[in-house]
Amino acid sequence: MTANEAARDRTAERRSDDETLMRAALRLAANGPARGVNPRVGCVIVDAAGRVLAEGWHRGAGTAHAEVDALSKLQPGQARGATAIVTLEPCNHTGRTGPCSEALIAAGVGRVVYAVSDPGQHSGGGARRLREAGIDVSGGVLAEEVEAFLADWLEVARLGRPHVTVKWASSLDGRTAAADGSSRWITGPEARADVHRRRAASDAIAVGTGTLLADDPALTARDENGGLLPEQPVPVVLGERAVPATARVHEHPLDAIVFAHHDLAAALHELKERGIRRLFVEGGPTLASAFVAAGLVDDYLIYLAPALLGGDRLAIGDIGVATIGEGRRLHIDRLERLGDDLLIVATPLGRAEGN
Amino acid sequence: MTANEAARDRTAERRSDDETLMRAALRLAANGPARGVNPRVGCVIVDAAGRVLAEGWHRGAGTAHAEVDALSKLQPGQARGATAIVTLEPCNHTGRTGPCSEALIAAGVGRVVYAVSDPGQHSGGGARRLREAGIDVSGGVLAEEVEAFLADWLEVARLGRPHVTVKWASSLDGRTAAADGSSRWITGPEARADVHRRRAASDAIAVGTGTLLADDPALTARDENGGLLPEQPVPVVLGERAVPATARVHEHPLDAIVFAHHDLAAALHELKERGIRRLFVEGGPTLASAFVAAGLVDDYLIYLAPALLGGDRLAIGDIGVATIGEGRRLHIDRLERLGDDLLIVATPLGRAEGN
Ligand SMILES: NC(=O)c1ccc[n+]([C@@H]2O[C@H](COP(=O)([O-])OP(=O)(O)OC[C@H]3O[C@@H](n4cnc5c(N)ncnc54)[C@H](OP(=O)(O)O)[C@@H]3O)[C@@H](O)[C@H]2O)c1
Ligand SMILES: NC(=O)c1ccc[n+]([C@@H]2O[C@H](COP(=O)([O-])OP(=O)(O)OC[C@H]3O[C@@H](n4cnc5c(N)ncnc54)[C@H](OP(=O)(O)O)[C@@H]3O)[C@@H](O)[C@H]2O)c1
Repeated sequence: MTANEAARDRTAERRSDDETLMRAALRLAANGPARGVNPRVGCVIVDAAGRVLAEGWHRGAGTAHAEVDALSKLQPGQARGATAIVTLEPCNHTGRTGPCSEALIAAGVGRVVYAVSDPGQHSGGGARRLREAGIDVSGGVLAEEVEAFLADWLEVARLGRPHVTVKWASSLDGRTAAADGSSRWITGPEARADVHRRRAASDAIAVGTGTLLADDPALTARDENGGLLPEQPVPVVLGERAVPATARVHEHPLDAIVFAHHDLAAALHELKERGIRRLFVEGGPTLASAFVAAGLVDDYLIYLAPALLGGDRLAIGDIGVATIGEGRRLHIDRLERLGDDLLIVATPLGRAEGN
Repeated sequence: MTANEAARDRTAERRSDDETLMRAALRLAANGPARGVNPRVGCVIVDAAGRVLAEGWHRGAGTAHAEVDALSKLQPGQARGATAIVTLEPCNHTGRTGPCSEALIAAGVGRVVYAVSDPGQHSGGGARRLREAGIDVSGGVLAEEVEAFLADWLEVARLGRPHVTVKWASSLDGRTAAADGSSRWITGPEARADVHRRRAASDAIAVGTGTLLADDPALTARDENGGLLPEQPVPVVLGERAVPATARVHEHPLDAIVFAHHDLAAALHELKERGIRRLFVEGGPTLASAFVAAGLVDDYLIYLAPALLGGDRLAIGDIGVATIGEGRRLHIDRLERLGDDLLIVATPLGRAEGN
């Protein structure tokens, strides 16, 4: 074996060890909370011989990051020359806890291995800081698995706002109600059950004051018997008109977030800060159209009932399209028959950003 | 073999002979023209031994009916005691030709076998008239095949008007054009080719004066290179405003039919009288909505483009639905992806009549 071959062998072996340890770190990460502002992160610290010295994971906003959690289990000096394997690039900013990069440097860690870069504007740059301090840093180990595990958090980090799903239910001619406003039920039980499952899978559900005042919706995720599903979205109301004290939204198991303005970008920013990753916009037409017009929709759920209604109660109003070339083109990702109804799942075509 | 068994045997044998001869009559019928006011009918006349004496078929409005055509090939007295096998119940009314029932009686035919009853208000009753004259009459022989062969003519006879297909192309939010009226092309080439194929398969294509004046459509069925398809629908224009002398519809290979009024039932009656069996209503929204509101639609072709347009150019306007229970419920018969677009083929639910 030449010296070159031996070196290549050692590199391959090290990569395989790194991946094994990264898998352990990912299992630790999964102990953390799946929702919220912060990602789920795991960390393993090993000595030069590859023996595990400490494990750590992040338990949610306000608690120690995974690296610091792991380091806290070691005696002073014990991490010197050790390798830290962590699922996300160590952060480089001072939040409620100090930057992890500095903690790793202070502990004398010799090598840092991570899976996915931190896309955060403020938190990114940890790898560079570590290298500047003379630490050996490898990124991208087991990146695909960890990307998938962190997908919704990463999307929020990249978009700078929650993922927005706009849903509506209409007749084939695009109406959500008859002339007198009656709309129960345009779609059938299968479509309604699908909506409730998707509400449960969202962090928050938004309506405008128009819908709140017209329909007094519960904004809960329910099963076919009306019972609450185990996971509930936070109710969000947008608009200047006051939410009545008697509104059913006050009976929701989670406190409502009310934005008494029309600034969607500001509302989304605030929701992101509150740990909302997936927002489900259920209308009505004014709010849905405002999201479309602002280019703030990541996917559409369009439930079409096999009916014609005519009249002026439309699912979507003005979205600022003057001529055909300005129309919002979508890609139909999925087409499903739900009972008698159709569900079209679509995403904007030619988006600058996003999934 | 008992006398009963022998009789049963003879009955079965006769039925099988009848079917064989009916198949021959159906082949003769197929020589006639596939479009027009009158059905395609064939007739075979056989003697008591089952030997074919004469064959006949109908060549279209104004010419002899199949029975009379066949009888005309015989010498006086030659049909006495013979059996006439005819695909449609012999007619009983005096039109441009005399009633076939009387012609068969006068010829002394002993037995008449037919497949399908004549649903016509004026032409029906031939079988009764023949029985009254002492002739042995059997109906329903090979009925299913002949029903299928005559399907579009039978539908017109039963509805008392042409079959009406209403087609529109819209975005997912039900718009046919952007705010400035631009709409080329909402749907892609696959959907447009599908429309042209369906135009070619229709007897006539109708638009309102609104579409005629706004778009100056050719109302032809064309291939992807703009060449005329071999079969063309008759162009039909509805509305009080005059069709300009320079309108492209005048270049259509077939003369346009113009109804300078809004009476859809009267227009359909006239089209039926002119031999139009299948009418393709291509809009615009005012005309389409009028057909929907009048309950004069047999099927819908809804082409949905994966786009959102907003605004007030809607595929369907007011259809007289005041409350949700009055909505026109449809049954989705087919769902197709045509390139990027969707085609929904639907029929009215709970119709009193029709297919
Ligand atoms: N079929 C369906 O899927 C569906 C779903 C939901 C609702 N609906 C129907 O929709 C109807 C209500 O329609 P709607 O359009 O009035 O309801 P909406 O969209 O829920 O509420 C509109 C209101 O939202 C507020 N708002 C907040 N942010 C805004 C922004 N960026 N731009 C504009 N307005 C903003 C405004 O209220 P302020 O004036 O208070 O500021 C506005 O009047 C009801 O009849 C309901 O049944 C149908
Ligand atoms: N996307 C699509 O599939 C599609 C298809 C076709 C057209 N379009 C668009 O539709 C627009 C034209 O809209 P439109 O609604 O004015 O067109 P339209 O429906 O073709 O024409 C409306 C006119 O039809 C006449 N009419 C005849 N019978 C009627 C009845 N029973 N009830 C009411 N009116 C009757 C009336 O004209 P009089 O006043 O002369 O009596 C009425 O103004 C154009 O911009 C065109 O591009 C879209």
